Amino acid sequence: MGAQQFVVAVAGATGAVGREMLKILEERDFPASKVIALASSRSAGSTVPFKNTELLVEELTEASFQGVDIALFSAGGSTSEKFAPYAAAAGCVVVDNSSAWRMDDRCPLVVPEVNPDDLDWHNGIIANPNCSTIQMVVALKPLHDAATITRVVVSTYQAVSGTGQKAIEELERQVRGLMGGQEVENKVYPHRIAFNVLPQIDVFLENEYTKEEMKMVHETKKIMGDDSIRVTATAVRVPVFFGHSESVNIETAKKLTAKEARAVLAQAPGVRVLDNPGEKIYPMPINAGGMDDTYVGRIREDDTIENGLNLWVVADNLRKGAALNAVQIAETLAARGLVRVQDRNVFETK
Amino acid sequence: MGAQQFVVAVAGATGAVGREMLKILEERDFPASKVIALASSRSAGSTVPFKNTELLVEELTEASFQGVDIALFSAGGSTSEKFAPYAAAAGCVVVDNSSAWRMDDRCPLVVPEVNPDDLDWHNGIIANPNCSTIQMVVALKPLHDAATITRVVVSTYQAVSGTGQKAIEELERQVRGLMGGQEVENKVYPHRIAFNVLPQIDVFLENEYTKEEMKMVHETKKIMGDDSIRVTATAVRVPVFFGHSESVNIETAKKLTAKEARAVLAQAPGVRVLDNPGEKIYPMPINAGGMDDTYVGRIREDDTIENGLNLWVVADNLRKGAALNAVQIAETLAARGLVRVQDRNVFETK
Repeated sequence: MGAQQFVVAVAGATGAVGREMLKILEERDFPASKVIALASSRSAGSTVPFKNTELLVEELTEASFQGVDIALFSAGGSTSEKFAPYAAAAGCVVVDNSSAWRMDDRCPLVVPEVNPDDLDWHNGIIANPNCSTIQMVVALKPLHDAATITRVVVSTYQAVSGTGQKAIEELERQVRGLMGGQEVENKVYPHRIAFNVLPQIDVFLENEYTKEEMKMVHETKKIMGDDSIRVTATAVRVPVFFGHSESVNIETAKKLTAKEARAVLAQAPGVRVLDNPGEKIYPMPINAGGMDDTYVGRIREDDTIENGLNLWVVADNLRKGAALNAVQIAETLAARGLVRVQDRNVFETK
Repeated sequence: MGAQQFVVAVAGATGAVGREMLKILEERDFPASKVIALASSRSAGSTVPFKNTELLVEELTEASFQGVDIALFSAGGSTSEKFAPYAAAAGCVVVDNSSAWRMDDRCPLVVPEVNPDDLDWHNGIIANPNCSTIQMVVALKPLHDAATITRVVVSTYQAVSGTGQKAIEELERQVRGLMGGQEVENKVYPHRIAFNVLPQIDVFLENEYTKEEMKMVHETKKIMGDDSIRVTATAVRVPVFFGHSESVNIETAKKLTAKEARAVLAQAPGVRVLDNPGEKIYPMPINAGGMDDTYVGRIREDDTIENGLNLWVVADNLRKGAALNAVQIAETLAARGLVRVQDRNVFETK
């Protein structure tokens, strides 16, 4: 008897994350009897590579999900808000990469290494967390289990690919221009990103934190299932193409030595410890590209508080931070027999 | 009666910081009757620009300081260890930019906006702090005076110019190589810096922090004159040419709202508040280049602790972080009539 096969749709298939989703479905040999590429009318009719062929991109409509089992969405918040309910109403399970559904109580927010059991109560739409949150919780969950994290102070060093293909092109164009002695324009970011750092990711909120910073605060609590973890974040864009890095300071209820933290992390799913300062071995974005693991290094005790640790966390933001995590959610759904929407009326279609 | 004029020597005049020192002496019209450029035998005989002329670079020797009033050193730790005592023995006051004398109890460690009075007890050698420490204490001192800082968690985003001219060339060479599709080498840094971030600045110590990180811990206490301020640091190199940035989280004994902190900083010497998120105004390295002020923005309350604040601090690392601070020390010495060494026997010459 063969394993069950699924009809899979990728909505937003022409974007940076959509293409990565197709690549990862292929790499991991996801049990798909058929893969459908969906995008806006603007991209419909183009093709995207998948296995040894090209998929013709179809227009994403309310009717796209008839007969589809799993839809991976990476088409932006408003597209997802509109179309994900139609998919769920059709019985298709959506794994959505936008921020539209993340804090919705009807939707689990899942990192398979951290809270796979939250998939059990899904209603057809499952949210994929923000990239910087995913890699942080993969590193923090095992430490939380071992010593109960009470506070997190995180500063990020985020790659431009997190913004999308146009931002990758902007960094490259600006670097080439500056190297040629030219003035350069910024279109994607509010300021130049080449040879600069921007202490702004996403828009500013009422409290003067950015939306990205508050995502790290709220999503961490929801994924870890613990509202008592206090998180404060500073999210910063750096002129790196691929790979987000994070400087993470944590306070725990129970003392954890650096050695103990290293041992806990060495056993943790999805984590790879790279921590040998004597040999200049630590995580870096240039080594994380194309990798599935979240890399943790520079693990050291912070003696300014009783139970403090500093960590340096790096991952491929397009893979673990987006496409890979979505595919891993789909795999977990498949393994647990959860690829069917029971109640198709939880989300309102409009 | 004209103002007093001094004979000034710049040791290490051909380096990135030495050249900046000459530029700043000129810009600020330092009262110098003569400026002497000193460097190692390798550079002796070359010239460096100063005002409308070129200074002939002389070899730095034990005898270089006869008749010199003030020597600005930026020639590396071992050169400074060897030659600064000869300068002091000759009655010349040394302002040294290396780390050699910073934690020596005989030497004040000074940021003129923070602890000018420590110059009063100098013995001929005054230490200029580490670049990342200088800009941080300029921003923190007024907040410490207002609310008593108890703990600092800082993550840095440091430019390659902090390493010197060779590192500037390395980033440029690597960027050009990668843009041309070539493999690139790293000579200055342990890993590639172009489109990457390196969580290592300076060497690793026994406690697995880097020397740069521990400089921020120890120097902050000495400059602020308060051993009770607890500092934990993560120092990171980013692919930026000029301008260090810092994400700083502080805890204070007394509550300070973001608004109050902004008001305190707006009055502080050497600080410029750039904090209007609605207009996307915040400090960035591209705006700090060539500027004297330390820029502070993203000032916001951290509600994970009772009295917490997050700040984003940026300055020109070659100016305020090095050459400008040294010249400001010299100016303060001159204004206070402290440009003579009273006891020439404090430091041993060898």
